[in-house]
Amino acid sequence: MQEVRAGPMKTRIVECVPNFSEGRRPEVVREIADAVRNVSGVRLLDQSSDVNHNRTVLTFVGEPMAVKDAAFKAISRAAELIDMEKHEGEHPRIGATDVVPFVPVSGVTIDDCVELAKALGQEVADRLHIPVYLYEEAATCEDRRNLANIRRGEYEGLKKEISLPERHPDFGRPVMHPTAGATVIGARNYLVAYNINLGTSDISIAKKIARRVRASSGGLMYVKALGIMLEDRNVAQVSMNLTNFQKTPIHVVFNLVKAEAERYGVSIIGSEIIGLIPMDALLDAAEHYLRLEDFPRKQVLEARIWDE
Amino acid sequence: MQEVRAGPMKTRIVECVPNFSEGRRPEVVREIADAVRNVSGVRLLDQSSDVNHNRTVLTFVGEPMAVKDAAFKAISRAAELIDMEKHEGEHPRIGATDVVPFVPVSGVTIDDCVELAKALGQEVADRLHIPVYLYEEAATCEDRRNLANIRRGEYEGLKKEISLPERHPDFGRPVMHPTAGATVIGARNYLVAYNINLGTSDISIAKKIARRVRASSGGLMYVKALGIMLEDRNVAQVSMNLTNFQKTPIHVVFNLVKAEAERYGVSIIGSEIIGLIPMDALLDAAEHYLRLEDFPRKQVLEARIWDE
Repeated sequence: MQEVRAGPMKTRIVECVPNFSEGRRPEVVREIADAVRNVSGVRLLDQSSDVNHNRTVLTFVGEPMAVKDAAFKAISRAAELIDMEKHEGEHPRIGATDVVPFVPVSGVTIDDCVELAKALGQEVADRLHIPVYLYEEAATCEDRRNLANIRRGEYEGLKKEISLPERHPDFGRPVMHPTAGATVIGARNYLVAYNINLGTSDISIAKKIARRVRASSGGLMYVKALGIMLEDRNVAQVSMNLTNFQKTPIHVVFNLVKAEAERYGVSIIGSEIIGLIPMDALLDAAEHYLRLEDFPRKQVLEARIWDE
Repeated sequence: MQEVRAGPMKTRIVECVPNFSEGRRPEVVREIADAVRNVSGVRLLDQSSDVNHNRTVLTFVGEPMAVKDAAFKAISRAAELIDMEKHEGEHPRIGATDVVPFVPVSGVTIDDCVELAKALGQEVADRLHIPVYLYEEAATCEDRRNLANIRRGEYEGLKKEISLPERHPDFGRPVMHPTAGATVIGARNYLVAYNINLGTSDISIAKKIARRVRASSGGLMYVKALGIMLEDRNVAQVSMNLTNFQKTPIHVVFNLVKAEAERYGVSIIGSEIIGLIPMDALLDAAEHYLRLEDFPRKQVLEARIWDE
């Protein structure tokens, strides 16, 4: 294999979905988004602001170090532009940059994202003097896996309690930044929203299947599921979130729903993926159904183009 | 959706696989390959020379206009460095650059590749004074679809016959270039090499299935198939070339082979893809088996990254 040039993007892709405590001043949101946009090798896929929540979510992707760099620049800009002493909004929050999850998409593991979260946390504490908490897969104790626990009391409450040993941050001194507050950084798996439509208008069947496939009632480990009704089509649907498509692949979910539906004499009339899905999740399905014996992903022509 | 920057590569990808009449002088091959490498937005995936054939095949991909540009530069360099008056080799050939197929990979049609072939043909004739013949999907008459017909008599024979009306080139005057001869340019579909391994050591079953699935004996239009034996594994295999995966998708081939095998009480133990395969071929399979109702390819996260 010969190479012409090293492209700025690689097939090692991390997603970052930071939440900022500003959803009302478009000029501030623009400046934070620009901090991300201006980092080479990073692509901003989405930005959405909620006025009631007074909050903005950015979604960007790229090579791991570039994504970390973009996250730092955005946190830094938010710290300059947002004053938590003046912030109001319906959504719970503890800082100007409230929460920053890293998500593995392609060629990286969840552990790589945990490392990225820790490196960013250290940098934010050292250089910006913002205390940082690690959550979800990056959490340093079981209690901090859950974001709600870290955010208890929100900005105002944490300001009073941060000096208590049990509320000390993972990085930085136990003192809130005077305007930017504190920030939660972590790693979580990619979430695939996947729905399967049944050949019946009986919602009770969709509910029974949902109970069978979801983790909470004994089903597949990384599946959340509900039975709902698509009123406009008069079709019952098993509506799901797959929280780890590597460990609970999409085709395993499909096959189990299909088998359970058969037990009620019901067919699967179709399925839908909501939003974006990493290429790997679908290649895993193709590999399964075609019974491919050995299929290194570098056999995908596009992967050869983008890879170094 | 927000955008950070326009990458040099797009998801409109064409492959080009030119054959040059030089496989013995590495320094000449290197110069021709460099002409491709130096074009921005093109990636050289493979290069292979055969000393007996005295011939080199390059495989490169990229955005359509960049690929055409790279092809022109390679043809131009080959015309400077190769003298057909002195060329010897076992493989049939009519020119320094012997044949140049364009192949659609992603986001382009075979018609786009035909246009590319015609534009390049005109340019090669006008600027390099090399007569050009169009073949396969780009052919201007049925007789010229087949490369062997165009190459009849090879360089030496065509030199004598090119002035005959039936052998006039599609572009340029009916006179051979004094050193570079003539060149064949065209468009063909991507070829996927796909083999299915059977749960039997009876090669006669593989042969019967091959006959059933291949076009030549009444099977699928874009399938070539043979029954062979994997001696080391004692496994019978249906070995196939899929010559148009858009019109005869890989999952249709798999399902037909599976159904035919069942008729002999034989299972499918696995399958294999040889070499590179466009992402779309596998996404089509995932879409089929998961029964996706509406799946625009921009829902693939990687496609959003690379696309403009």
